[in-house]
Amino acid sequence: MPVISITTDFGQKDGFVGTMKGVIWKICPAAQIADITHDVPPQDIFTGAVALWRAAPYFPASSVHVAVVDPGVGTQRRPMAARLGEQFFVGPDNGLFSFLIQDAENASQPVQFVHLDRPEYWLPAVSRTFHGRDIFAPAAAHLASGVPLESLGTPLTDPIRLAFPQPERTAAGWVAHITVIDAFGNLTTDLRADQLGGQRAVTLRLKGAEVNGILGSYGQRQPGDLVSVVDSEGYIEIAVVNGSAAARLGARLGDSVEVIL
Amino acid sequence: MPVISITTDFGQKDGFVGTMKGVIWKICPAAQIADITHDVPPQDIFTGAVALWRAAPYFPASSVHVAVVDPGVGTQRRPMAARLGEQFFVGPDNGLFSFLIQDAENASQPVQFVHLDRPEYWLPAVSRTFHGRDIFAPAAAHLASGVPLESLGTPLTDPIRLAFPQPERTAAGWVAHITVIDAFGNLTTDLRADQLGGQRAVTLRLKGAEVNGILGSYGQRQPGDLVSVVDSEGYIEIAVVNGSAAARLGARLGDSVEVIL
Amino acid sequence: MPVISITTDFGQKDGFVGTMKGVIWKICPAAQIADITHDVPPQDIFTGAVALWRAAPYFPASSVHVAVVDPGVGTQRRPMAARLGEQFFVGPDNGLFSFLIQDAENASQPVQFVHLDRPEYWLPAVSRTFHGRDIFAPAAAHLASGVPLESLGTPLTDPIRLAFPQPERTAAGWVAHITVIDAFGNLTTDLRADQLGGQRAVTLRLKGAEVNGILGSYGQRQPGDLVSVVDSEGYIEIAVVNGSAAARLGARLGDSVEVIL
Repeated sequence: MPVISITTDFGQKDGFVGTMKGVIWKICPAAQIADITHDVPPQDIFTGAVALWRAAPYFPASSVHVAVVDPGVGTQRRPMAARLGEQFFVGPDNGLFSFLIQDAENASQPVQFVHLDRPEYWLPAVSRTFHGRDIFAPAAAHLASGVPLESLGTPLTDPIRLAFPQPERTAAGWVAHITVIDAFGNLTTDLRADQLGGQRAVTLRLKGAEVNGILGSYGQRQPGDLVSVVDSEGYIEIAVVNGSAAARLGARLGDSVEVIL
Repeated sequence: MPVISITTDFGQKDGFVGTMKGVIWKICPAAQIADITHDVPPQDIFTGAVALWRAAPYFPASSVHVAVVDPGVGTQRRPMAARLGEQFFVGPDNGLFSFLIQDAENASQPVQFVHLDRPEYWLPAVSRTFHGRDIFAPAAAHLASGVPLESLGTPLTDPIRLAFPQPERTAAGWVAHITVIDAFGNLTTDLRADQLGGQRAVTLRLKGAEVNGILGSYGQRQPGDLVSVVDSEGYIEIAVVNGSAAARLGARLGDSVEVIL
Repeated sequence: MPVISITTDFGQKDGFVGTMKGVIWKICPAAQIADITHDVPPQDIFTGAVALWRAAPYFPASSVHVAVVDPGVGTQRRPMAARLGEQFFVGPDNGLFSFLIQDAENASQPVQFVHLDRPEYWLPAVSRTFHGRDIFAPAAAHLASGVPLESLGTPLTDPIRLAFPQPERTAAGWVAHITVIDAFGNLTTDLRADQLGGQRAVTLRLKGAEVNGILGSYGQRQPGDLVSVVDSEGYIEIAVVNGSAAARLGARLGDSVEVIL
């Protein structure tokens, strides 16, 4: 069965996402639809891009991922669709797919983009404020129904790309940066565990606190302890056991984490 | 595949909506189920009615929409179902379907109501506090499975109707009213763009602020600017570019917006 | 069609649940997936267990319920799966299924447990922090696809069990305890209506307030009144008509309710 995921900054209270599902099922009645998140902070393209980047690889081949964090809706910003490896992506051309594009390129997988400029694959009336409903949901549903990517629009070669933060080498080790703060208050960084070459006896410093050593799991310390673990994507994470490191430390996206080898 | 949508004021933390889905799939295993919203403010029938009214028209023909904002649960208020145009609706008879009934009547579409008074289409045991689970979900699932509307209950001709706010003509132009405040803090009014007869050079005044002109899109101004646009349903909307007009102005549902031609 | 439900403390903002759905559909493309709740307070096994216990019985036979409230992720706590009556359950062995196990045993239904120790039914790479994605979602999807429970792991006989609160008999009547505070602020207790033997003319005292009599429905009193009703599972509930008893009384889970016959 065709699979479609939806990622937005629409929140859940207004029915915008439900409306998109109605549009999808009108075109592709058998589609399985999953919500990735609708709680991306309003207009925060980076956070939306990270959420989609972490979730999409776990979906079946041929899944279609619609993402709508779209401060430029109604302007000249292009609506786009992409094939990246075995999956498809639909949304505004504003950087939402950056990290997935980079991974596909690094893995030498197929990478293909189109400008969604064929109105026959949109709703008949297109508003100036809700392209999620009027352009992106229908385009995704047509893709999921088997319409070839290249039918949806003109080839496009220069999608907007956001830079992903990179940890910096220092004399003492690394300076990493917080890239995700999840609902538990866990702090994920841009430093991959494999960049430490197997070393786990490191010291991490952030926001005036210090963490010694990278553990195998949260459960090796007591509730309330500040710890570091390898997160589920292979990155170094700072956490409080059964608590919130974000709340404890007042940490924010982009904050630096000093890693001393 | 049969499509069912669910709109409630149940919130998402307790599992009430998941329970309704279990009930639905027991009766109609192939149903595609979409959430419209479960964050209608508790007992706020008007807000629930507006959310459903905006979303339902985008669903496929024969969809069944269950709505449960039900302060009268367990009293004599009637459970009802309706056919409006090509779609079906199930919920308490308290006004939740008012605006959809009005639109169907205005468009001379089929309009038919029944009082859900046939317990053979409910769960065997009916509680006094959760008709969403015990009456409305099963009735919706039976409809989606092909049971005719008229089998579910006795015809009913006088469903309760809420009045939708109407903008008022004034010497200077219009007084409109805020009907929706969405998650972005955008303020939708009851004044349709077509009621301005194509004029866009109007002045809007609300809560001590003034907005000049109705734009084609948010992106024609700078982030932080207070603007007016035509919303995705064709109504005049006040917004802050990449911000919240509701927070900026302290606006609330029902507030007046003076529109000077 | 196979049905899977998901209950977690993951919240909805990070995409963790969407990721689990992607994993499930890779293995079991036809699965219907319902969210029970993802707003279980972090690491609050009791609240997760109660939410699942109230929802699961309404699902079709052969449904698979995945629950992940998992403070012990990455430690020696066992991943488990269970058959209870006609339904299946997958999650950490930490008490999440306690009340469902007890009900199945009390009803002399089939009860069977396995330790999920066969990695061929997991994702190829298993993280130390996200077994919902790496172990529980795949195991649930395999069950839903028809893999027999006993293929997923070694039989297990001693799952961890939480005690459900029990009301206490007193000279004057009962002392009950608040077990659920729902999104409306209604307070459910551990005292079943049938334990009062049909008596409804009782006095309830909690947090300095007094409620006289158990009503048939909220609507028998005025908005704002503090009342008691029988909840949708047959337990005594304290509520404020169209308001929040939790907010009015400052009530919390576990608080005592004196019931005077």
